[in-house]
Amino acid sequence: MSAPLYLDHNATTPVDPVVMDAMLPFMTAQFANPSATYASGRLSRRAIDRAREQVAAAIDADPSEVVFTASGSEANNLLIQGLARAYRAETGALVHLACAATEHPCVLAPMRALQQEGYGFSTLPVSAQGVISKTAMTALPAQTTLTSVMMANNETGVVQSVAELAGAFRAGHQGWCHTDAVQAFGKQRLSFRDLHDAGVSAMTISGHKVGGPKGAAALVRDRELPMQPMIYGGGQEGGLRSGTENVAAIVGFGLACERASADLAARAKRALECQTWLEQALRQRGAVIFGDEVVRLPNTTYAAFPGIDGETLVSLLDRQHVAISSGAACGSGKAGVSPVLQAMGVDPVLAKGAIRISLGMMSHAASDRESVERFVAQLDVVLGQLQRFAAVA
Amino acid sequence: MSAPLYLDHNATTPVDPVVMDAMLPFMTAQFANPSATYASGRLSRRAIDRAREQVAAAIDADPSEVVFTASGSEANNLLIQGLARAYRAETGALVHLACAATEHPCVLAPMRALQQEGYGFSTLPVSAQGVISKTAMTALPAQTTLTSVMMANNETGVVQSVAELAGAFRAGHQGWCHTDAVQAFGKQRLSFRDLHDAGVSAMTISGHKVGGPKGAAALVRDRELPMQPMIYGGGQEGGLRSGTENVAAIVGFGLACERASADLAARAKRALECQTWLEQALRQRGAVIFGDEVVRLPNTTYAAFPGIDGETLVSLLDRQHVAISSGAACGSGKAGVSPVLQAMGVDPVLAKGAIRISLGMMSHAASDRESVERFVAQLDVVLGQLQRFAAVA
Repeated sequence: MSAPLYLDHNATTPVDPVVMDAMLPFMTAQFANPSATYASGRLSRRAIDRAREQVAAAIDADPSEVVFTASGSEANNLLIQGLARAYRAETGALVHLACAATEHPCVLAPMRALQQEGYGFSTLPVSAQGVISKTAMTALPAQTTLTSVMMANNETGVVQSVAELAGAFRAGHQGWCHTDAVQAFGKQRLSFRDLHDAGVSAMTISGHKVGGPKGAAALVRDRELPMQPMIYGGGQEGGLRSGTENVAAIVGFGLACERASADLAARAKRALECQTWLEQALRQRGAVIFGDEVVRLPNTTYAAFPGIDGETLVSLLDRQHVAISSGAACGSGKAGVSPVLQAMGVDPVLAKGAIRISLGMMSHAASDRESVERFVAQLDVVLGQLQRFAAVA
Repeated sequence: MSAPLYLDHNATTPVDPVVMDAMLPFMTAQFANPSATYASGRLSRRAIDRAREQVAAAIDADPSEVVFTASGSEANNLLIQGLARAYRAETGALVHLACAATEHPCVLAPMRALQQEGYGFSTLPVSAQGVISKTAMTALPAQTTLTSVMMANNETGVVQSVAELAGAFRAGHQGWCHTDAVQAFGKQRLSFRDLHDAGVSAMTISGHKVGGPKGAAALVRDRELPMQPMIYGGGQEGGLRSGTENVAAIVGFGLACERASADLAARAKRALECQTWLEQALRQRGAVIFGDEVVRLPNTTYAAFPGIDGETLVSLLDRQHVAISSGAACGSGKAGVSPVLQAMGVDPVLAKGAIRISLGMMSHAASDRESVERFVAQLDVVLGQLQRFAAVA
């Protein structure tokens, strides 16, 4: 049996051992509740403050703009529901919401849920390459109060020009712009300051995609944004997110952010080389690569072999101890075609063939040329099996 | 310098080393996303399934009734907001909500927030001992759709007869009953099945109060309850709580639940002995103990020395490396009088003296007679300091 090969880093990454070491004391010796006023409680509080500074530094934001949550999904929901409900409470208006048709379900679904409550909602169309146009932003209803456009797509890796899109929207609208940067973070340079100057008021990042633990993420937002909590209670996180802080996870998240922003250019260059080799090999074997003509994350390849079912391919590769995905992790296990590819107008038959290979870009879990070569070798085994099966059938 | 003495276990507990060992692999070697379909993803999924069984077994519930959240606060908010909004969506009615005046802020605050949106809300009064009467339940408005009464109070430790109160409510109302059992869990026997038979439809428990990690808790609920999510997205937790599961924390929570339900009678007996010694010593020194005449958790003592400020006492004890609280952890740092004591009608001057000593009951962090003796010795030092100061001033 060959050693397992993990190429699903967009789904999650292992915790960086250095991050792990930093987290452990906060579960054992230094376990105190950060709301406690005694010495060990104050130490927990300071650890959270330090993590907030690390997160802010990694994305060029102010620490006071960072709200810790337990997941990127929670941060996106907090922004969308928190802003929509607060704005409604202030103005009495049922606001209009908009997001790209290719957004993650944790953006699409809360907007659709608010639509059920009477809020307006529309999706922004994307091109065949998965790109949103400035025209689409300009054409949004005048009363649009919130747009959410992801920085980079979790399935295709297609990168949007979020700053430009925000500029186009803000030129003709009073509303605010949010970007889900969960997949972009740690893979390309991110400056909340620059984005804010361009008209973006809020951004979401998550720890477990960049070597931090599951259980810590952040909503980064302009403090002037109307916002109400989803979780009410003890008043933690400036009243926006109550509940005893997961100190260890937050400490790990802070350090992971610091490490994810270090050495980024070199890591991106290495990933791009691997991606180029990989995609050349895939094309040679007849694969179509989605979003091939536009800027994509250097670690993400979403492809299909015409006539070969994606789920079958993933399953056969799994038997060879190769872990890749047939789409977003949270959508796995559900039948049907990727809504992202559907929005891009991909032929449903081809879309059923989709597989996603996402390389490790973090220094503790970086995929290299050897990973790609091993993947391609196993892919050839599996493609051979399928050909033999087809010949017999 | 004497070794630190931690007697604030109601705020949080250290992670049980056995629990820690079980968690670690799920952050490193076995880190896969449980939504992934490949082998390592399925292992993560099975680990969550197993934890769900452990949680259910510890509280005599069915695994399918357990919804994992990141905190007790989130679970309480999910139940309250999820039920209120779902019921409103089904029936069009702005329902009436009720809870005890002594509830944790993560129950009171979401109900008050819903009141701002037009829902009805009333608080149940408590006696001078902090007890809710069946009459108060019976007297709730006929249209009351949800009541929440905590099993044991986090500050006073006062235990409510939740089953009887639910019975009284359900005899004259169509609505549902929830109980926040975060502080009771691991300290007294809990059977969701028995509670359910008595008319309780939902219950909240949390991991970090019983030797599990911060970052995992559960809402346990009758599946027939109308319920909508707070966090929408990938559809995890049966669609009720989206977001990549914090596998390691959930695994730790599961094992902590198993251990918190084991050997409970013996642990409770030992804690009660410690509590008896402690309270005798406190009374000898002139302290008033809140809820003294009623059933309380065997680990929780909420007391005041007339004429001595609670915050001052906590602060002076902190200098002696003794960690206790002047109230609930999440309320610490805020000026003013405990709302719990206010609801009990305690004289505000006396209430300003409140200090909470909460003993460790988990086997990995159990307080013993020696802990109590050391506490009383340090208390005498501090009371002596205060007397000398008063003599000089």
